[in-house]
Amino acid sequence: MNTDNEKTGEKGSVSIVETKYFRTDSPFILESEAILDELTIAYETYGSFNREKDNAVLICHALSGDAHAAGYHESDEKPGWWEEMIGPGKAFDTNQYYVICSNIIGGCKGSTGPGSIDPKTAKPYGLDFPVVTISDMVNTQKLLIDFLGIKKVLCVSGGSMGGMQALQWAVSYPDMLASCIPIATTCRHSALQIALDEVGRQAIMADPNWKNGRYEPGKGPSGGLSLARMIGHITYMSDKSMERKFGRLMKKKEYGYDFTGDFEVEGYLQYRGDSFIQRFDANSYLYITKAMDYFDLQKNERLCDSFRHVRGVRFLVIAFSSDWLYPPYQSKEIVKALKLNGIDVSYCEISSDYGHDAFLIEFDEETTLIRHFLERVRHNGKNSTAR
Amino acid sequence: MNTDNEKTGEKGSVSIVETKYFRTDSPFILESEAILDELTIAYETYGSFNREKDNAVLICHALSGDAHAAGYHESDEKPGWWEEMIGPGKAFDTNQYYVICSNIIGGCKGSTGPGSIDPKTAKPYGLDFPVVTISDMVNTQKLLIDFLGIKKVLCVSGGSMGGMQALQWAVSYPDMLASCIPIATTCRHSALQIALDEVGRQAIMADPNWKNGRYEPGKGPSGGLSLARMIGHITYMSDKSMERKFGRLMKKKEYGYDFTGDFEVEGYLQYRGDSFIQRFDANSYLYITKAMDYFDLQKNERLCDSFRHVRGVRFLVIAFSSDWLYPPYQSKEIVKALKLNGIDVSYCEISSDYGHDAFLIEFDEETTLIRHFLERVRHNGKNSTAR
Repeated sequence: MNTDNEKTGEKGSVSIVETKYFRTDSPFILESEAILDELTIAYETYGSFNREKDNAVLICHALSGDAHAAGYHESDEKPGWWEEMIGPGKAFDTNQYYVICSNIIGGCKGSTGPGSIDPKTAKPYGLDFPVVTISDMVNTQKLLIDFLGIKKVLCVSGGSMGGMQALQWAVSYPDMLASCIPIATTCRHSALQIALDEVGRQAIMADPNWKNGRYEPGKGPSGGLSLARMIGHITYMSDKSMERKFGRLMKKKEYGYDFTGDFEVEGYLQYRGDSFIQRFDANSYLYITKAMDYFDLQKNERLCDSFRHVRGVRFLVIAFSSDWLYPPYQSKEIVKALKLNGIDVSYCEISSDYGHDAFLIEFDEETTLIRHFLERVRHNGKNSTAR
Repeated sequence: MNTDNEKTGEKGSVSIVETKYFRTDSPFILESEAILDELTIAYETYGSFNREKDNAVLICHALSGDAHAAGYHESDEKPGWWEEMIGPGKAFDTNQYYVICSNIIGGCKGSTGPGSIDPKTAKPYGLDFPVVTISDMVNTQKLLIDFLGIKKVLCVSGGSMGGMQALQWAVSYPDMLASCIPIATTCRHSALQIALDEVGRQAIMADPNWKNGRYEPGKGPSGGLSLARMIGHITYMSDKSMERKFGRLMKKKEYGYDFTGDFEVEGYLQYRGDSFIQRFDANSYLYITKAMDYFDLQKNERLCDSFRHVRGVRFLVIAFSSDWLYPPYQSKEIVKALKLNGIDVSYCEISSDYGHDAFLIEFDEETTLIRHFLERVRHNGKNSTAR
């Protein structure tokens, strides 16, 4: 697909897009050995296949993301969550690549999750939905990739939990992957990361409207979910970015000497919490954070051993200096383990004050790094085919 | 008071102690201009006055502390919260100093607070209790110091919110103070610190048992208070100390694939939350965190201007390298502002992995620093009297 942007080199948008649905009635076996009798995966695609179908890029989303990574849904004012990174002339250049993004299993944006109807009961699964893992997310994406007729993915990438999926892809399906760009992520959740997820879950489960997960649509534990999101938001920013954005700015002219909230930062958190409950399901929040906590590429072996079959995949690992939720040292552990296997890996720590959120903000540096990396991967791929 | 410890130089305990109560029926005017018609302040003292009554050391406690800083209450197995620092031969050496610690106004350990009986209604104040500030805490301590007949306090010290009180003492009553040791603290809560307090408060206020603060004793918002404490606990530790203590250690043999908690760190947080609700009042938690959020020595002027009347006071400022709740840069801001006023200040950043909790753990280094500092303050005081 040639576009104006391709000629001018300017960045553009993939414009109007639609979410599509992949469905299968084949039983899907989860890592827990639980079985789902049917499975739906919501996904979007941007750009076109080349003749060889070897230009596919799979984007994996984070906790609160969805399949709508770029472009605009008809009548929506806001674009997809990584619009700045996906499109003509952008990091994941839709003039060159066929970009795919799917909603994770366990989510609440079109893929099968705890809010879906359980065929056995004709009611929402609730907590009867089996606990899913990062591997399960990747295995559903593998079904989708097969369905799309792709033999080898040029690149899988994502930030935060998206990065975990990218890493899991490399470990689970190294032969189906040319390259991997994990961003602001880790190969295993630390005690601190588990602890932060757990307080979010406790906030939801303590809400009387949660009812052990058996709430009716629209009558869920909105207070608890909002609080979980507020806690999350604090961890996505940095001390410095919060200080710059809010400092001690006040909502009121003077101290109110009450508990209605005096400071801008309090109002902001409340706003972020309130808007989150409009678009997210509390049970999905439980399932997705649990999947992250269970994520551990290392398990009982050395991390470098987990990567021993990954040799054919090339890596670009990106971290952000002020990210205290997924600190750069965790990315460096990944890099070291890859290096110990002689794997081709580039590492870049982007200097940023934006904390973990930086992967959704620092587009310029990410774009430059990713564009160059993908060009190298593509050309080396062609060269090695030619040889 | 000569003790065996004084002769041998060994460290000992002040042994059995009792909480005392200072009461006044004079109206107490708060910073908010609200008035309390009566006031009780719980306090303990350890050691004895010297002849000149110039050996008093005032210890200020943090969020969840109380007047019981050292020694043992009759039949109690656990000593006071800073037992390792206060006693014969210790940092605050009761062979030399008359050590005082009082429970803050707004607290729930014997001093007047939201759980106290409102004389107007003969019921607990609840949210009718006026919002208190760090200044108010210090002003009640001033009443107590006057009542004890002390003209000048040798030293005021405390960690975290205790450090805020110590700093406020220096600013409010510089002529009554020879020295000040603020530990792991700040001169103003940052946006991050306010945000973390706010999610704790939201957790409490979202609990249906909170009932706008009008809960009966024993029927309070224990779930919300427990959650607030869990959030707090995460911030008191460091990534490294959590990793060392828990890592990915599991409570179960294998992943449970449910939401009952798989990891040791989850069980630990739950335990800390559950034990906190046995000993703390939810409304007090709201009032005390609000006081911290309001704390701002700087307000609309430059910080160094806030300290311009403090010249006669000597300072030892202590921070801990891994403390991300009250990071060392905040202590350095205090030091700089003091230095700009030509004030005598020593700064020490203790290298520790324990995060904010370090002020309750790193006793050896704290002890050495504080002992030497206090000796210097005491001897310089004598010298200047002799001159």
